[in-house]
Formats: sequence, structure tokens, C-alpha cells
Amino acid sequence: MSLSHFDAAGHAHMVDVSEKTETARLAVAEGWVKMTAQTLDLATEGRADKGDVIGTARLAGIMGAKRTADLIPLCHPLPIAKVALDITPDASLPGLRLRATVKTTGRTGVEMEALTAVSTAALTIYDMLKAAEKGMEIGGIRLALKEGGKSGRYEAPAP
Amino acid sequence: MSLSHFDAAGHAHMVDVSEKTETARLAVAEGWVKMTAQTLDLATEGRADKGDVIGTARLAGIMGAKRTADLIPLCHPLPIAKVALDITPDASLPGLRLRATVKTTGRTGVEMEALTAVSTAALTIYDMLKAAEKGMEIGGIRLALKEGGKSGRYEAPAP
Amino acid sequence: MSLSHFDAAGHAHMVDVSEKTETARLAVAEGWVKMTAQTLDLATEGRADKGDVIGTARLAGIMGAKRTADLIPLCHPLPIAKVALDITPDASLPGLRLRATVKTTGRTGVEMEALTAVSTAALTIYDMLKAAEKGMEIGGIRLALKEGGKSGRYEAPAP
Amino acid sequence: MSLSHFDAAGHAHMVDVSEKTETARLAVAEGWVKMTAQTLDLATEGRADKGDVIGTARLAGIMGAKRTADLIPLCHPLPIAKVALDITPDASLPGLRLRATVKTTGRTGVEMEALTAVSTAALTIYDMLKAAEKGMEIGGIRLALKEGGKSGRYEAPAP
Amino acid sequence: MSLSHFDAAGHAHMVDVSEKTETARLAVAEGWVKMTAQTLDLATEGRADKGDVIGTARLAGIMGAKRTADLIPLCHPLPIAKVALDITPDASLPGLRLRATVKTTGRTGVEMEALTAVSTAALTIYDMLKAAEKGMEIGGIRLALKEGGKSGRYEAPAP
Amino acid sequence: MSLSHFDAAGHAHMVDVSEKTETARLAVAEGWVKMTAQTLDLATEGRADKGDVIGTARLAGIMGAKRTADLIPLCHPLPIAKVALDITPDASLPGLRLRATVKTTGRTGVEMEALTAVSTAALTIYDMLKAAEKGMEIGGIRLALKEGGKSGRYEAPAP
Repeated sequence: MSLSHFDAAGHAHMVDVSEKTETARLAVAEGWVKMTAQTLDLATEGRADKGDVIGTARLAGIMGAKRTADLIPLCHPLPIAKVALDITPDASLPGLRLRATVKTTGRTGVEMEALTAVSTAALTIYDMLKAAEKGMEIGGIRLALKEGGKSGRYEAPAP
Repeated sequence: MSLSHFDAAGHAHMVDVSEKTETARLAVAEGWVKMTAQTLDLATEGRADKGDVIGTARLAGIMGAKRTADLIPLCHPLPIAKVALDITPDASLPGLRLRATVKTTGRTGVEMEALTAVSTAALTIYDMLKAAEKGMEIGGIRLALKEGGKSGRYEAPAP
Repeated sequence: MSLSHFDAAGHAHMVDVSEKTETARLAVAEGWVKMTAQTLDLATEGRADKGDVIGTARLAGIMGAKRTADLIPLCHPLPIAKVALDITPDASLPGLRLRATVKTTGRTGVEMEALTAVSTAALTIYDMLKAAEKGMEIGGIRLALKEGGKSGRYEAPAP
Repeated sequence: MSLSHFDAAGHAHMVDVSEKTETARLAVAEGWVKMTAQTLDLATEGRADKGDVIGTARLAGIMGAKRTADLIPLCHPLPIAKVALDITPDASLPGLRLRATVKTTGRTGVEMEALTAVSTAALTIYDMLKAAEKGMEIGGIRLALKEGGKSGRYEAPAP
Repeated sequence: MSLSHFDAAGHAHMVDVSEKTETARLAVAEGWVKMTAQTLDLATEGRADKGDVIGTARLAGIMGAKRTADLIPLCHPLPIAKVALDITPDASLPGLRLRATVKTTGRTGVEMEALTAVSTAALTIYDMLKAAEKGMEIGGIRLALKEGGKSGRYEAPAP
Repeated sequence: MSLSHFDAAGHAHMVDVSEKTETARLAVAEGWVKMTAQTLDLATEGRADKGDVIGTARLAGIMGAKRTADLIPLCHPLPIAKVALDITPDASLPGLRLRATVKTTGRTGVEMEALTAVSTAALTIYDMLKAAEKGMEIGGIRLALKEGGKSGRYEAPAP
């Protein structure tokens, strides 16, 4: 098995996609931020009157998706057509669950854009709540769904 | 408990640190990327002759740390004095473990810079190995150690 | 009336444009920087031999247009095909009038790119002349013309 | 009168501030976005349940302040210590009034950071409401207050 | 002869490419970093066990190519389809020779992207080796080959 | 001899400068763009009435210096205190000679900022004149002078 991000000599390169056709592509990524129940209360009450942790993280995730090619060395720049981020409290975690959906019409997929959206939003949640709890953990970041392109559909097994 | 990133009216702001003194500050963050044993072999063999997954991820993490204030809406820009990233294979995971150390002399801490370094490096590992395995998972991202500043020393409990 | 930048639940998202067709799009935006007649003399004399305020502002505006999707959270990244900025002295203001023209072939319009070009150029004019006059005012920033796309042609009424 | 952003030959340069002392500096800038009363209703209702125009603009303005030295060619990069943005509805405009406060401890002032925060937030308001009204106008952008540094205190006259 | 980056009045603008057709485009640029034989030994030994100067420079060049439109004022943003960088030791220089290949399918060429890749990689080589030798020189940066677009094929004469 | 940008294991890191003292630092870098005499005429006439190649390149170089830590992987972000760029025609080359001066008060030197200013300005000159001559060459990029910091003064020998 060879990795496409390296050439025959093992040197990193941004792989040539100029021969690929432009097709509709979709990726969904997910993740979570685990915290104490008290911190989760702060994050969710916050939406009403103390400050909007979730809204801030959502915007940071959307903006982060647009910076993917700046951050990930061998990612192609892509004209992103859609980014949406669902961030929902889960008392059983306890914490916040994140799910990013990204679409494009292009020559490569948007998996990295979706994963970067989730990561950036999760980091922002950490930043906004760290005064209350330094021990939060970010995890469960993975690709949930991918459609379009030559490699076709991928759906992650249930976690 | 109120969150420092919101003012009394609940509006997000970049909190005023101008009255804080410049002190030496350190943060260590950690995380991992879980993959199959075969993918881990690809990642580690790669260092020798097929392409350097770990070296690429390390650079991406270092550069990501410098972009923290661009990515996290309410983070202060900081003159980072040091960034180092250890990325080591762990056959028991199986996968790669990441550990970032960031230092500054400044008015706020560098927790977010260390966490951003780990996240960016983990995303880069995913990007470089995704042709081999789409089901990799990024997790265990947390602050391991923090020193300096008014709130003092924090060390995470053993995982 | 609902706003396209929010979904049904009121959450901000980057709206899906993947079903839109790529068409030629044009936007023209305008604005001004008001200053004293003496400061205007400085700005315009400057072109000849004391330093080029207007040329510097023009370049800043063109470069600013390319950063639009970085600055405006829910803007789509776009392959800009043209940016031009006219900056002309107007003794009756007194001050400088700015007019930016932006074109693309894409799935969304370039209104924000044109408005960002005008704003960035106006800020640069302020920066370069503020040693002479801190009381300058930036105003009159509006969309003058928009063509292309499903919503069709828009032309602002005379000011 | 000569402009500090040009040298003796009239060439643009980033002026040498290395001999200046680091002092506490504050700048306040203001501006507005004028719209119809119906659009203003959309913007303010939005906070409750249809989507948060004002919250999004506030974050964009804070993040924009951090990009000032990237956008304005001759601005010095500065370690910003505080950014806050007040955005309040004004039925008599009708529209939204913006006011940004920026602080640093550094060798140059933060006027441009405050003005850039206001401009970026105003552009974001336009972007989020343009589906409802293309004819909105951005204006009244000016420096309201400046403290610190050799040139001392400046306060704008009442508008 | 007039320069396309200026309009009839001599004002800089980003030239209108919206009427051009999207075609496959290729550019190859080259350059070198001259150093003493001892420094070259450090750079090349480094690959094995002391640190990877060449691998770091290659990544910096690839990432630099993606920043071209941010750096060069009148460059159009382009969806880069491929970037590869060859960096090879040349004992007769002595030093390292760089060669960047960039492809896109777009309305303008990728000469500037290829030249920026070479320049950024060369600067990174200087940065990583400057502790050993401050007197290194970067030179020979030129366009080697260009294909596609209305102006057709260009191949540089042998150096 | 070991290279400071690698740790004992040969891994790239951003070296720890937190123990260094903040001192005044200066760097001067130089380079040139070689072209035919006719192209040089275009570039220099341009200043008067056809468009300002040199002024555009100067601004690009100044802005490029501010992006150094974004472009060069292991460079520390620095609060640049001054950037100036001299660009002068040299009929004996024939071409344009560039010389950048950068100052800071910080914990590391500004050699890379000065070299990046020269490189970015040279690339911009190429971009603006490439319609007239594709065969231009960029070279002679080197550090001319460095002052401040523990390693002291360095002055390049006459070329």
C-alpha cells in the first residue's frame, strides 16, 4: 500500500487532481467535548443570558473549515459550497456533541474540511469554558459520512 | 460562576489582560490518533523511506500553534517563544500519541496554543493516512500541564 | 421573512450553494473618507512626490477583497476574476470617493468582496493620513450595483 | 506637514517605533449600519430565536481587529490586550450602532484595530441582512477616543 | 507595450480574467541556495538522523504556493491542483537546487505559484541552516516552463 | 555542529527563546531582479504615469515581512518595529536592486523578515512585468547586515 501524499521517492507532495472530474462531494464529521455536568450547565444556560458558548463555537468551526488548506500542509484549496455545524448537549456524556456537514463541487473530497470544522469548534468550546474546568477532554473525532468522488460512499460504523 | 469570555451582559469579548504582568508561561497538551496496526506500520515505516507522516504532522502542529489567535475567536495573539511536538507510535493503542509543549513570556497562558498544535498535527496525520484507513479516530485531547500566571500550576490526573 | 444565513433552528450556517449554477457576477460598491481640505491636499499632492496615499489604499483594497471569506464569517470563498478600485478626490466633500468593481464566475455574488475592498481601502486612507487629522470620517459605504445570479440586477438609487 | 508613513523620498515604509516606549494604549471607534425599520426588527428579533445577527457581527469584529496588521499595509503588528464591541439598535437611525474598544501595551496606538473591528462587524451585519435589504448603508465610522502614547489623549467632538 | 496589471490611467488593478476559458495550466520554476560544502553536508546528512532540512523546506514551499494570492498583490486566487518540489544537493554549486511544479485548471497561469513555492522553500533552507552559515545566497530563481492558456508554451533557455 | 531548529533526536522544533533577553535587533537583506533594458525602462517609466511597479513591490515586501512567521515553519512570531524597502534601478544589471531593513525589540533576530521582504517584493516585480518578459531572474538574495542579540554583528563581505 502506498500513500498518495508521497511520490515514488517518498517525498511529500500535493497530489495532482487535475485529471479528476468536478463532482458534488459531501462529508460529515463528528466529535465531542467531555466536561462535568456543572460545566455543561454553564455552556447551555449560557445560550440564554450569560453568553453564547455554542454559537461562538459554531462560527469558529465554520470559519475554521475555510482555513483547512492553510492548516493541513497537503490539502488542496477548495471552493466550499456549504458548512453547517450542529452542537448539542448530551447529559449522558456529559458534554457537547459536534457534527459538521461540508459540501463542495470540486476535484477532491471535503473530509478534512469537516474534521477541521469539528476540531476548531471543539477547541473554541474548551477555550470558552476553561475558566470553569481545565480538565475537559476532546475526543471521538472521526469521519461519519463521505459521498462523491471516485472512491464513492463511506459511512462509519455506529460508534 | 461566570465565564471570563463574556461581559456582564453576556456578550462575548476578548478579555482585558493589560493589567496582568508578563510572566513565563508553559503549557503541555496531549492527544492521540487511533488506527489499525497495519496503518500504524505505514505511518512508522514511512519515516524511513516511503514518506514522513510524523515529520509532516509535527511541522503542521508547530505552524498551527502560531495560528491559534486566528482560529479561536477570543484568544489573544501571543509572541510564542517555543513549540515542540512529540509524536510517538503506541502499539497498544494502536496509533500515534501526540504531546505538544508551548512556552511564552506574556500576559495570558498558552493552553490553547498547545491544544491547537496537537489538534492540527492529529488532523494532518488523518489526512496523510486516510487513503489507507478512513475510520481512524482522534481523541484524548486534553491539557496535561500548565505553569505560570495568576491561576498557577495545573497538572492533569493520570488518564 | 427569514434570513438565509440561519437554518430553521436559527443557527448560523454557510448556506448551501452547491445547487446554484456558475454564472458571471458583478458587484460595484462605493464609499468615501471625509477630511479637511488641507488633509485632502496632502493626500493628493502626495501622489506626485511626497508618497502615494491613493496608490497604497488601492492596493490594500484589492488585497482586502481577496480576504473577504477570511473576515466575514458566513461568506463563501470565491475565485475572484477581477478587482478594480477607483479613488478620486472630491473637493465638495471634501475628501476621497472610493468605488470598487469585482467580478467572478461562481455560485454566489461578490457584493461582500466589493464592500470589503472599499472598507479596507478607506481604513488604509485613514491610517496614512491620521498623523495629519484624527477626525476623518468613513461613510457612504453601500452597494451601488449587482448583476448576475438568480436574484438578478440591483442598482442603488442615486444618493 | 509630512506624513509619517512616507520617508524623505516619499516612499511608503513601516515607520520605526523601536525607540518608543511601551505604554498602555486605548482606542474607541464607532460607526453604524442604517437600514429600514423592518430590517432592524429582523436583526434584533433574531437574537431571540431566528439567529443571532448581532452576536455573529460582534465575533467577526473581534476577530477582524486581530487581522488589522494583515489588512492595513503599514500597520505594525501589536499584541492586543482587549477587544470589546457594543452593538445596539437605534430606532431613530433606524439601524445598529457599533462601538469598539481596544487596548494594548505597546509602542504604537490601536486606533486602526478599533476602526477595523467596527468596519468588519458592520460588513458582517450587511452580509447577514442583505437577503432582506440590499440598500443598507455603512457610515459614521470614526475614532471616538484615543489614550496613551506621545501624542496623548484625543476625544472626538460630539457628532 | 503596456502592462496588464495597470489600467489605462496607470492604476494597479487585478486584471479581468472572467472572459478567459478554464484550461489546464502548468508551470515549473527553479532556483538554488548556495552554501559552503560543509553546510551542504549538514543539510544532507540531516536527512538521515540530525533533522530533515530538505523535507521541512519542501513542505514550506508547498504551503507557500497556496499563499501566493495572499502575498502577491495582483495575483488571482486559484484552485491549485498539484504542487511538487524537488530539492537536490549539487556539490558543484555547492548547495541545494530547487524545482517546483504547479498545475491548475483555471483562468490564469500558475507561474507565480511555482516561483513562490521555490522562494519560500529557499527561505526555509536559509532559516534552518543560518546557525551554521549566515553568508548563504539564494539565486537563479526563474520560470523554467509554462504550458496552457492563450499565450501558450514557454520554455526557458538552458541556464 | 548541530542545527538549533532540531532537537537532540533530530526532530524539528521552534527553539525555546524564552530565556533570551529582549534587545534591539536589526537586519538588512538584499537581492535583485535581472531583466532586459527595455523591461527596466517599462518598470521605471511606470512610476511616472503608466503604473507604479516599484511602489507596488515595496508595499508587497513590507506586508510580506509581516507574514514571515506564517510562511517559514520554525520562525518565531515577532513584533516588527520597522520595515523599509529600497528598490532602485541599476542599468548595469540591468534590473532592479532591492534592499530591506527590518528592526524589532525582541528575543530573536529579524534576518528572515528582511529576506522575506526582499523575496516577496522581487516576486511582485516579476508578476507585474511578466507580460513583458518571462525570462527575468531573481537572485543575489542574501543577508547584508545583522545587529543585536547574543551572536552579535554580522556584515556580509562586498559581493
